[in-house]
Amino acid sequence: MRPSIVLFGDSITEEAFGEGGWGASLANHYSRSADVVLRGYSGYNTRWAARVAGRAVASIAGTVSAVTVFFGANDAALPDRASAAQHVPLDEYRDNLRAICALLKVRPWWPSVVVILITPPPVDEDGRRRYPYAQDLSGLPERTNAAAGAYARACVEVARQCGVRAIDIWSRMQRFSGWDKGFLRDGLHLTPRGNRVLFEEVVFALKDADLSLEALPADLPLFGDMDPDDPAKAFDDQD
Amino acid sequence: MRPSIVLFGDSITEEAFGEGGWGASLANHYSRSADVVLRGYSGYNTRWAARVAGRAVASIAGTVSAVTVFFGANDAALPDRASAAQHVPLDEYRDNLRAICALLKVRPWWPSVVVILITPPPVDEDGRRRYPYAQDLSGLPERTNAAAGAYARACVEVARQCGVRAIDIWSRMQRFSGWDKGFLRDGLHLTPRGNRVLFEEVVFALKDADLSLEALPADLPLFGDMDPDDPAKAFDDQD
Repeated sequence: MRPSIVLFGDSITEEAFGEGGWGASLANHYSRSADVVLRGYSGYNTRWAARVAGRAVASIAGTVSAVTVFFGANDAALPDRASAAQHVPLDEYRDNLRAICALLKVRPWWPSVVVILITPPPVDEDGRRRYPYAQDLSGLPERTNAAAGAYARACVEVARQCGVRAIDIWSRMQRFSGWDKGFLRDGLHLTPRGNRVLFEEVVFALKDADLSLEALPADLPLFGDMDPDDPAKAFDDQD
Repeated sequence: MRPSIVLFGDSITEEAFGEGGWGASLANHYSRSADVVLRGYSGYNTRWAARVAGRAVASIAGTVSAVTVFFGANDAALPDRASAAQHVPLDEYRDNLRAICALLKVRPWWPSVVVILITPPPVDEDGRRRYPYAQDLSGLPERTNAAAGAYARACVEVARQCGVRAIDIWSRMQRFSGWDKGFLRDGLHLTPRGNRVLFEEVVFALKDADLSLEALPADLPLFGDMDPDDPAKAFDDQD
């Protein structure tokens, strides 16, 4: 029985199987050992995510080993600009993340689920101005990097309080020069290179939680392990 | 509850979430409406696949809408060359495919599963000589396009007899000039362009089986359908 790794988040999760996407890379990495299950909801903030989290994961049967919870990019939209409808105040963001963690951790059929909170990515404000979601007559971006940073710090803090892992992708990406155009295609969503950075962080977090590729058994015998003179023997002890 | 689309096959399925992979493209296509579940077993032929098919799909819970069955590339390896251990005679290949179809169609919790048999892809013999799996002192390729074609015709025939769909990717790819290097990276496995051709054929087959993107409901309200003045209203009738 393969365990599942569930990706719960907003558009950066919903598009995780697009070109060079971090979700596709995870599914490829665990191709013989775990199912990667997509639960991405474009545009959602933690207010809506907390409301639907139970239903979003209800249809996932079997053992869930890990869930990534990747919200905040929409919560951090500024309350007085073009994406105000998505804004969630910082304190409520914290409460919603706590509620989502609590809901995922009490599911009785996921006794040892590893929850990984992912902070919002950094924002390239110039990129947002070039590719706005909605026309804003002020000409100002609807998201700023400073606001995303405040939500990122809150996310890391909630993870510590709840005893779950966090990936601070906001800080991590900004350690690389050229992060703004190199990792973000429209100031917010990830390029293939940005996806690669996130994929590597998720693989590292899963490894740290004893869910490395080496730690998970392969589903059915590997062809390379079969005896070329009697390959079917590999199945004898599996019938 | 999202239905699942299961990809059952050999290495061309196991690597379907690699760069530009047809499985990743399917997961992206159905990102809000279906789960794409990977069951690819590199090196396997239909003899081994028929033996393990029940176990391969045992852990998949919920409704399975469709299964692609994509074997034959290894069965068609020539019996007197370097990959002889994978060879399965043509008549047995037919029997094994029938057995797999029967097993998938009688699962009581998949009452209306759509089974799609996919033929082996064409073989570029020059590509196989450049990237052999194993050293063959004869210098001859371990697979030929003519052999793959015989298995492809048998696959289409079995699909017709069993009343399931078939994708004849062996014929389809050869309609394009430059298929040998354009679609096959080592004479057998798919390039991103080859993956694209297969992805489009699978989407078409699913559409023909009433499993188009338009026919499947989206999981949870789409952000674009929410009222910007009262977005949470979209969830009221879902609680």
